[in-house]
Amino acid sequence: MVVPKNHPRYESLLLREKVKDCLKEGIISEVGIAAHGRGEAFDYFLGERTTEQAETAIKASARLLCRAENPVISVNGNIACLVPEEIVKISKILPLKIEINLFYRTVERETKIKKRLEKFGGKNILGVGENANECIPGLDSLRGKVSREGIFTSDVIIVPLEDGDRALALKNMGKKIIAIDLNPLSRTSLCADITIVDNVVRAMPRLIEEIKKLKNKDIEEEFIFDNAENIKKSIEIMKNNLIRLQEKIDER
Amino acid sequence: MVVPKNHPRYESLLLREKVKDCLKEGIISEVGIAAHGRGEAFDYFLGERTTEQAETAIKASARLLCRAENPVISVNGNIACLVPEEIVKISKILPLKIEINLFYRTVERETKIKKRLEKFGGKNILGVGENANECIPGLDSLRGKVSREGIFTSDVIIVPLEDGDRALALKNMGKKIIAIDLNPLSRTSLCADITIVDNVVRAMPRLIEEIKKLKNKDIEEEFIFDNAENIKKSIEIMKNNLIRLQEKIDER
Repeated sequence: MVVPKNHPRYESLLLREKVKDCLKEGIISEVGIAAHGRGEAFDYFLGERTTEQAETAIKASARLLCRAENPVISVNGNIACLVPEEIVKISKILPLKIEINLFYRTVERETKIKKRLEKFGGKNILGVGENANECIPGLDSLRGKVSREGIFTSDVIIVPLEDGDRALALKNMGKKIIAIDLNPLSRTSLCADITIVDNVVRAMPRLIEEIKKLKNKDIEEEFIFDNAENIKKSIEIMKNNLIRLQEKIDER
Repeated sequence: MVVPKNHPRYESLLLREKVKDCLKEGIISEVGIAAHGRGEAFDYFLGERTTEQAETAIKASARLLCRAENPVISVNGNIACLVPEEIVKISKILPLKIEINLFYRTVERETKIKKRLEKFGGKNILGVGENANECIPGLDSLRGKVSREGIFTSDVIIVPLEDGDRALALKNMGKKIIAIDLNPLSRTSLCADITIVDNVVRAMPRLIEEIKKLKNKDIEEEFIFDNAENIKKSIEIMKNNLIRLQEKIDER
């Protein structure tokens, strides 16, 4: 479908078309489409912009990533669909390992996602087939499969749009978690060390900029970052947007 | 996938599985799945229950439907998937005409939805193929196709999960609109005469009960119902749930 440029939700509809195409290609699962829809609703409440809180979380994440020894990004169908170029860019700048980590895991889908990332220049993509040879403690064998050189031995992991059980299990392994999640109340958001409450299509390019600024600089101290406070402020923004929308009804 | 009964989001996950199956069967479109996901997020904010405001809106709707001369329910893939039995039940009690009215219209999908409704006892289902022989003024020919004996000449229409442009065009034809929509801020919700801000799976059985109570009674006066006030109160509930969730973070 061609989305008319003057549609009030043009950007959002373009993304939806992209997600639809990726479902047809087998990159995204049906449940991934529902997750995208949930994200749309949360983004609507957020005002569809990168908030001040998200900016702070992005800066803290860049700092954490630049200090990390073995950072990894966990890639599912949705983010491979939405930000393949940005994933590859970060992987080259830092460097950061790319690991495919699906909730509905099939070698077919893993391979399709790998090819999509390679099309954008991605190299050494982990987590496909036999490469996912370790298991995260506390998860069943299908949900817990990860690569030894990647997520299993990583110290910092970016988990955009991650399942709550998995994020918690990774946290229990002692890893630092950076979540990118539009729902500030998801279990993933609440258990992460840093939660970027933002749309991945806005957050990832900003994260690249911040990493570029810090790269090759001496980062001696850790950034002081209070994630509970950050999440509470993000909810506050949603609440205030609701009040604003409520007032709009009165003006009609 | 088998959903474990002790999962904190059991009911919601069951519905998601149903929607997934209906996508595979061709009842729901990909965009319908995204819409379902948006609904999940709004329902979460609403507290996943039928609010007092929704109860009032359901009562007002039952009254309006019992007084109507040619009431119609507009059926899309999502509601044919979620509440086929309830659609058929209301159609028999009132009586109410059933018209299939898809945003992504194909005769194949119309026929599949018709068969699904017939499986639950539905009869004389309108809006399939050549039966959608009229056009709603102000809409293009694909989006505006409706049946002469159904939506085109109806006085009251139930539009669960309807597109905003179409709801507005129907309103402009002078019809009374009953929307069932989890997003109180959608254009459909805002332009309707009565908006039931609730999940269709909860609202439809309640609507059936109310219609049964009123059926064969003399309904002289119209129910006084302020939809703007109703919508504002629904937003208020979402806002208060956010505050409650914010407080929960402090308790952690």
